[in-house]
Amino acid sequence: MPSEHRNPVSTRTRIKTKNRINTKNRTVANVMANKRNAFYAQSGGVTAVINASACGVIETARKHKDRIGKVLAGRNGILGALREELIDTSKESAATIAGLRYTPSGAFGSCRYKLKSFEQNQREYERLIEVFKAHDIGYFFYNGGGDSQDTANKVAQLGKRQGYPVTCIGVPKTVDNDLPFTDTCPGFGSVAKYVAVSTREAALDVASMCETSTKVFIMEVMGRHAGWIAAAAGLAQEEKDDAPHVIVLPEVPFDDDAFLAKVKSTVDRIGYCVVVISEGAHYADGRFLADAGSRDVFGHVQLGGVAPTAAQMIKDKLGYKYHWAVADYLQRAARHIASKTDVDQAYALGKAAVEFALAGKNAIMPTIVRKSDKPYRWTIGEAPLDKVANVERKMPKNFITKDGFGITEAAKRYLAPLIAGEDPPTFRNGLPRYVKLKGVLVPKKLAEFA
Amino acid sequence: MPSEHRNPVSTRTRIKTKNRINTKNRTVANVMANKRNAFYAQSGGVTAVINASACGVIETARKHKDRIGKVLAGRNGILGALREELIDTSKESAATIAGLRYTPSGAFGSCRYKLKSFEQNQREYERLIEVFKAHDIGYFFYNGGGDSQDTANKVAQLGKRQGYPVTCIGVPKTVDNDLPFTDTCPGFGSVAKYVAVSTREAALDVASMCETSTKVFIMEVMGRHAGWIAAAAGLAQEEKDDAPHVIVLPEVPFDDDAFLAKVKSTVDRIGYCVVVISEGAHYADGRFLADAGSRDVFGHVQLGGVAPTAAQMIKDKLGYKYHWAVADYLQRAARHIASKTDVDQAYALGKAAVEFALAGKNAIMPTIVRKSDKPYRWTIGEAPLDKVANVERKMPKNFITKDGFGITEAAKRYLAPLIAGEDPPTFRNGLPRYVKLKGVLVPKKLAEFA
Repeated sequence: MPSEHRNPVSTRTRIKTKNRINTKNRTVANVMANKRNAFYAQSGGVTAVINASACGVIETARKHKDRIGKVLAGRNGILGALREELIDTSKESAATIAGLRYTPSGAFGSCRYKLKSFEQNQREYERLIEVFKAHDIGYFFYNGGGDSQDTANKVAQLGKRQGYPVTCIGVPKTVDNDLPFTDTCPGFGSVAKYVAVSTREAALDVASMCETSTKVFIMEVMGRHAGWIAAAAGLAQEEKDDAPHVIVLPEVPFDDDAFLAKVKSTVDRIGYCVVVISEGAHYADGRFLADAGSRDVFGHVQLGGVAPTAAQMIKDKLGYKYHWAVADYLQRAARHIASKTDVDQAYALGKAAVEFALAGKNAIMPTIVRKSDKPYRWTIGEAPLDKVANVERKMPKNFITKDGFGITEAAKRYLAPLIAGEDPPTFRNGLPRYVKLKGVLVPKKLAEFA
Repeated sequence: MPSEHRNPVSTRTRIKTKNRINTKNRTVANVMANKRNAFYAQSGGVTAVINASACGVIETARKHKDRIGKVLAGRNGILGALREELIDTSKESAATIAGLRYTPSGAFGSCRYKLKSFEQNQREYERLIEVFKAHDIGYFFYNGGGDSQDTANKVAQLGKRQGYPVTCIGVPKTVDNDLPFTDTCPGFGSVAKYVAVSTREAALDVASMCETSTKVFIMEVMGRHAGWIAAAAGLAQEEKDDAPHVIVLPEVPFDDDAFLAKVKSTVDRIGYCVVVISEGAHYADGRFLADAGSRDVFGHVQLGGVAPTAAQMIKDKLGYKYHWAVADYLQRAARHIASKTDVDQAYALGKAAVEFALAGKNAIMPTIVRKSDKPYRWTIGEAPLDKVANVERKMPKNFITKDGFGITEAAKRYLAPLIAGEDPPTFRNGLPRYVKLKGVLVPKKLAEFA
């Protein structure tokens, strides 16, 4: 962390002179000490390392007790703020908070809930400010993807307008790796590692059985709009004929004939074929491959995802015996095989968020800045929230091979460091020990929000 | 290993006096040293630890160079013997052989190929003996499930009848855990661990999102006839409301209403529900759940497996948002999260097979004998091959809860030690290092087998 990110003296002065805080709801201790509480919330699809960011936020806040009172966490994300369901993290032991670093998914609960625009639903934003006031919250740390950064930005603006300044810092998170400005997003490195490891392992299985059994194995992974996750499977390939042999990305319009030809030529050459396919694979006209199939006799859209659809196509057109897997939540929850790089970055971004806030910064998101590929060196940077929101970063063209079914050396250079290192949880009775929170809520002070 | 298993003096005498070996194909070195080659083959579906058994066989044979010449491995299992495609393992370095302990799937290739009865296809058995003769093979180690033990037994009988005695030892292997006489089968403990870990991790994901998103998560696991693998997911449950909340076993006829009621009551109580379902789930009349769905507009049986079928049922009848995963090969290839107990047992059984052979035993399979549950203590026993074959061990009734959707404390006592301990491979560039064999074939001596 560069030293310019820490500037406690000037920040303290700033808070003293600029904040006009309604003191009605402030504890005597907070007022006396000139400190304020923080609010932290998790948003959107969870990851193997989002709790590592929470750990970074809470542990860092605890080191600055002179400035930050309690960290209150939203139960089920931003809904916790709207409903005034605030988990008092001061009731959790240091061991539990440390354990968050090793615990996947959202320990405080997350939600899929996007606040609308000011115009459409000003009440919700006002409610947030109201709850923040009631609980003397001066810092808002929002751990999520692009939408969440947008929300954090709006809260910062509204607070300022309403004379209740709240420092809003976004903490990036998404397995989709589609946020701009940051080298990568926490959560992605671990799902990338899971996918690369699983591809390598399953490919050995197929290779050893292909003489008399399965010829084609298809693994479906996440990524509706961007193919980063499927692309990461390409890291399993060290030599030319290693798996994966075919990667299907949403960036490349799906073409039945090209796909089948690639599968056939692979089986002809080496006896089997491993396909990794993005859930978002689609035709040039936009139809998702997963929807392109058929309906059952009751008129339901078929049950399967894109992997079984592609598998059936291979069976029908090429006659090969197939197997398919759909990793679904397993991939993004797989803390047992998390990338150490990813865990470290998730923690560092949570820590940086608090340090930025204490340094008087506002409406920004700490980012990962790559200094070099090999050895991989990175540092923390920052991006303004109003620039981050709602921009989707897709795979660049030079990361995709000419035939559209593989990744280039440039892609491997970018991806490889993100899956580096292991950081396993401790195990008990053969299973990872993941922490459970007490989850004590602070007493409500406001009427219910209907 | 009990000392009575080692009796080199009496065995050597026995071989000298009882074996009438055609010396035509024997190398001078072998004849002079009174030693013979060994044949090893992998059979059926591969596992995360079958190569650990290979490692046990080869390393132990290398320690007895006075008695065993080369270990020749069948390329693609028993097909390698029929086709005289024999991998010369003496060409592989000690490091590569040691690396097999950490490498999943069948490094020599496996196959789904069951030799028929003597009456139906005596030629194949005779061919095996012919190849064995041609390559001076005196030991046959067959690493597989029930069918393979049956084959090994028949080869032992035929050899004896034809005046070419070959010592045949089975090495148990199957993720299905359905072999009799042995406490467990190598491969099962690791898939059990993978399933329990994945259940715990995915359940945290669902729990953290259930307020606004997915309410029901369904994971499909292997087990067409016996529910051992699905049952192992139950180890993820430490407290009453922990996942998995519903386990669907092939031992319990599926009932739509009971299943839906259980899912609904779970969601009503705790807000979400995690289901682990065996691929072999079926109705009382024998119809597999996976086949019970529908056909697409082209008349194809639906593409999905049992997980999407159950998910659709939940959507249609209860209206819950669902996600589903199909682990497929990922579960049995997941060496990165293998059970140390399983790896140790796989190795020990390979080692024991060689030691039994050298002790003059024949037509047996080494087994795991449980001495105590807690602490788990085990030793090596033996079972006659003619008793092992074609017996399928299902879950006992007292391992299944009364409602049919869970496992009992007795089941947990049995299962828990099998997933204990971790034994990760080494990693390089963020990925497990798995060995690749040179796979040099010994020169053929016979005409092609048509």
